[in-house]
Amino acid sequence: MSVTPEPQQTIALVVRHNTAGIDEPVQAIVDFLQGAGYRVVFEQETAGHVKVAGVAAMTIDEIGAHCGTAIVVGGDGTMLGIARQLARYRVPLIGINQGRLGFMTDIPIDRMLPALGDILSGKAKTEERSLLEARVVRDGVEIHCSVAVNDVVVARGTGAGMAELKVTVDGTFMYNQRSDGLIVSTPTGSTAYALSAGGPLLHPTLAGIVLVPIAPHALSNRPIVVPNTSDIVVEIINGRDISVNFDMQTFTSLQHGDQIMISRSPNTITFLHPEGWSYYHTLREKLHWNEYPSGDGKLK
Amino acid sequence: MSVTPEPQQTIALVVRHNTAGIDEPVQAIVDFLQGAGYRVVFEQETAGHVKVAGVAAMTIDEIGAHCGTAIVVGGDGTMLGIARQLARYRVPLIGINQGRLGFMTDIPIDRMLPALGDILSGKAKTEERSLLEARVVRDGVEIHCSVAVNDVVVARGTGAGMAELKVTVDGTFMYNQRSDGLIVSTPTGSTAYALSAGGPLLHPTLAGIVLVPIAPHALSNRPIVVPNTSDIVVEIINGRDISVNFDMQTFTSLQHGDQIMISRSPNTITFLHPEGWSYYHTLREKLHWNEYPSGDGKLK
Amino acid sequence: MSVTPEPQQTIALVVRHNTAGIDEPVQAIVDFLQGAGYRVVFEQETAGHVKVAGVAAMTIDEIGAHCGTAIVVGGDGTMLGIARQLARYRVPLIGINQGRLGFMTDIPIDRMLPALGDILSGKAKTEERSLLEARVVRDGVEIHCSVAVNDVVVARGTGAGMAELKVTVDGTFMYNQRSDGLIVSTPTGSTAYALSAGGPLLHPTLAGIVLVPIAPHALSNRPIVVPNTSDIVVEIINGRDISVNFDMQTFTSLQHGDQIMISRSPNTITFLHPEGWSYYHTLREKLHWNEYPSGDGKLK
Amino acid sequence: MSVTPEPQQTIALVVRHNTAGIDEPVQAIVDFLQGAGYRVVFEQETAGHVKVAGVAAMTIDEIGAHCGTAIVVGGDGTMLGIARQLARYRVPLIGINQGRLGFMTDIPIDRMLPALGDILSGKAKTEERSLLEARVVRDGVEIHCSVAVNDVVVARGTGAGMAELKVTVDGTFMYNQRSDGLIVSTPTGSTAYALSAGGPLLHPTLAGIVLVPIAPHALSNRPIVVPNTSDIVVEIINGRDISVNFDMQTFTSLQHGDQIMISRSPNTITFLHPEGWSYYHTLREKLHWNEYPSGDGKLK
Repeated sequence: MSVTPEPQQTIALVVRHNTAGIDEPVQAIVDFLQGAGYRVVFEQETAGHVKVAGVAAMTIDEIGAHCGTAIVVGGDGTMLGIARQLARYRVPLIGINQGRLGFMTDIPIDRMLPALGDILSGKAKTEERSLLEARVVRDGVEIHCSVAVNDVVVARGTGAGMAELKVTVDGTFMYNQRSDGLIVSTPTGSTAYALSAGGPLLHPTLAGIVLVPIAPHALSNRPIVVPNTSDIVVEIINGRDISVNFDMQTFTSLQHGDQIMISRSPNTITFLHPEGWSYYHTLREKLHWNEYPSGDGKLK
Repeated sequence: MSVTPEPQQTIALVVRHNTAGIDEPVQAIVDFLQGAGYRVVFEQETAGHVKVAGVAAMTIDEIGAHCGTAIVVGGDGTMLGIARQLARYRVPLIGINQGRLGFMTDIPIDRMLPALGDILSGKAKTEERSLLEARVVRDGVEIHCSVAVNDVVVARGTGAGMAELKVTVDGTFMYNQRSDGLIVSTPTGSTAYALSAGGPLLHPTLAGIVLVPIAPHALSNRPIVVPNTSDIVVEIINGRDISVNFDMQTFTSLQHGDQIMISRSPNTITFLHPEGWSYYHTLREKLHWNEYPSGDGKLK
Repeated sequence: MSVTPEPQQTIALVVRHNTAGIDEPVQAIVDFLQGAGYRVVFEQETAGHVKVAGVAAMTIDEIGAHCGTAIVVGGDGTMLGIARQLARYRVPLIGINQGRLGFMTDIPIDRMLPALGDILSGKAKTEERSLLEARVVRDGVEIHCSVAVNDVVVARGTGAGMAELKVTVDGTFMYNQRSDGLIVSTPTGSTAYALSAGGPLLHPTLAGIVLVPIAPHALSNRPIVVPNTSDIVVEIINGRDISVNFDMQTFTSLQHGDQIMISRSPNTITFLHPEGWSYYHTLREKLHWNEYPSGDGKLK
Repeated sequence: MSVTPEPQQTIALVVRHNTAGIDEPVQAIVDFLQGAGYRVVFEQETAGHVKVAGVAAMTIDEIGAHCGTAIVVGGDGTMLGIARQLARYRVPLIGINQGRLGFMTDIPIDRMLPALGDILSGKAKTEERSLLEARVVRDGVEIHCSVAVNDVVVARGTGAGMAELKVTVDGTFMYNQRSDGLIVSTPTGSTAYALSAGGPLLHPTLAGIVLVPIAPHALSNRPIVVPNTSDIVVEIINGRDISVNFDMQTFTSLQHGDQIMISRSPNTITFLHPEGWSYYHTLREKLHWNEYPSGDGKLK
């Protein structure tokens, strides 16, 4: 439990934009933390839209340098954005969700204070998630670099014909794939876009990366899981308007011959969950497992 | 609305076995129907287990000869069983569900009396469903014949190697398929086993039959929808312990060379739904459409 | 066989662009047809790139007015383009393929002359394919109209978030779907993009249209087949850079509230195949049926 | 390359039954190996059916004790059977295939002698595959134990209703699954039955095990990949005629409450491939990657 925060540490609060009625619970969190002896700061953008007085603001870099924990109030989207930015500082993250629980924001707002109390006092389940790092290389020169918590997606533009992508893993040719695109996903991303495109679930502790083709021309181009030590290169062979997405961030105007070089990031993300948290419990809730579609009408 | 019942007609009641607390609502239905001037009878098995006095019993054949409507109280399984038996008498069916609504039993028990009143007075949506008829032919001789509301399934036994099945449609060879088996399904069955095995949904009014392979060896052996006028022959080429199921009824001990000849039944089933009933509404409810798995964490 | 051509009729030739070595077989076809007493014309674009002398050119409209048959030399793409344009003239089509046989261009170039001779003398298998007609309506005004042989595809742009599409069939709400897009496909299109996105095969004579979601957020948003008499409306609820494609033709810049209204076209396409042609044979060839992925290593 | 054989070592030959014309190539292998100074023995069953004189026979146990390498002539099925038996002796395996190449038997018979020469002289690519070990526990007592190279499959019997299986991983409840059964597969098995049932490909070096439900009732019961250090327990909750298969070996008559406890075996299999061997090359060949189904007719 060495990653759980010590009293007197500084805790950062990140709050989703445009969330009606969020000031009151944020005030409650601030009061609770300050009452417990922590210093509390707002992430800079949060400071701009939350109406809670007397809390200093910090940039992401300052949070990385000074905070022992960051608490995210919002949904998985908010968590994803902040996790990408904080990854290189290895600040542990706690997720509180105002609405329906997320995969990463798993503390309901109506039980947040006891959950925070438990986690901050060391009754926490620590979970580490891997990230991807991707570089776009054109004519031997790196023209873009980014990290992804969920996935790196190379995809054709709307109205364009199929993309043709050449995939190489650890220097060995895998295939030329014709499709709408290719999703290269972490275990964390396996419950997001990759799942919609037909990919498997990957347990967060699996040392794997999954490649999921989007609407591939060849029916046997099935999702494939490779070790997360793999160096994956996706080269643009053919297609128009091809872009690459890192989580939500788009880099457009890829050209034939451009290579997207993807590997595991040296950084990781640490989530702090309440004790008793279970990944399978989250899956059951989010994926409606054990809620059968057809009652007793399903006879086989 | 010509199929909706006339007053003074006889209405049959079919009630699921082993359903705790079912006597009271059944008594309420009987009272309601008798009060409205209908004659009410119990299907013979129902008469054996329901504790409601003063209601005569009829066999399925008698119901077919004398009843203008049958009301099923139970789930889709109960409806399926009775629908198979009543199909050749074309008695319209009304489905009341005590628990979670089914695809075919769509009236909740707590709104059953007004719904029945409306339907029996002609405020009903009539819906017709097609059935399959299948004959098992060995050495040119028919050795078994049955109908199916949902599906005809030819499948290998447990622990046996793959089945190899030769499929012919309208006298034209389709393929030799190696798999766990083949589901030949009506639109009604497309929400049952066929769906689990990867088949598409078929709208009940689609004039089609879908062939869904179960875990096929060839990845390109995809589900295929053929017109419901098709004559489909499935021949056992290879495999052990192969059996054929008609809805829930199993015919075992198929031999190499046996042929299962499947075509649309000349009979159909008629369901009477409350006005405003919508198949898509049922799909949305049963398949959790519009309930997204991952909240805002799904970013693509 | 009433659609097969009569001697002295005019036959149009359509030849794929940029096809090395195509002049010689085209010359052979011209010689063969003229020798058999037919008048032969080139479709206008074909006339511009084929080096065969003494053959008049006609526009599509002129071909529609004057020709009894059109022969397409190329692949399925060439056939698709010409079929869309000739559909309203109901000119029967014959497909010759220089390379690997297509779904629609099924006569190999090395057997083309005897095949043509047979077909033109009435030894043909006539096959009719349905089309879709789609109108884009904004604020109650039709702003675009087109037909599709394969599919109408509504899809989000690259780098945009998910599209949210509201689907209504025959005036009844089906669902709000969040996905990369929706493919509305004819049986002809069911072997193209719809298949890549997980859709079923539809036999060409099935009176159905299939809706196939592309990477849908809800895992239960499965392909659904509706009767081809259905009026399907896809409304843009949310998403950026959404466009609609009719086969290969893109209409971009859709706005929230725009509706794409899709129904079966009153026109159809007629293919003339050699006698003995079988759709299932084509499927077996194109989808590698009966070529098993894993030899005897597949042990189940 | 420490696992490659030393000269003077003993090499075992295992040959598939009922293989017409196999004696001649086997004679050639024997001559080649003896000529190179190796001692050659036949596996006992092989000795019974191969017509090659002057070669001693050994049992599996004797091969395990005395042989430095085993050469399998046959298909993946033959390899699978011998690999299971030799796993605990860690004898490296070389696979020669008479017909279409397999996933594990990757040396074509017409190039076998130079390939053997290279491999035995150390020009080999060594590849290690993990196995599963499974115990069947009833009322706390182990009643069966086995290993599997491909998969452990718990499945319902033919004609029986759905199986209900409770899955626990590392002591944490995953789900109660209703389906035809559950495949628990190694990376090696991911190209076999698991693939047919919709599972992903797992690279052989991935430290993972995949759970693939067969025709699951809940559409969101997707394949899930867990670390290969996981202890997986599958408990029979409901269903008739449920059996468990270890590769091809069936253990039947499972009862409600029986638990199948699955984990990685401490043993592994070592394959010796020719230098330059590539797993992705094998996948491309076996899965027909880069052979597109629809030529230019696929327009997206």
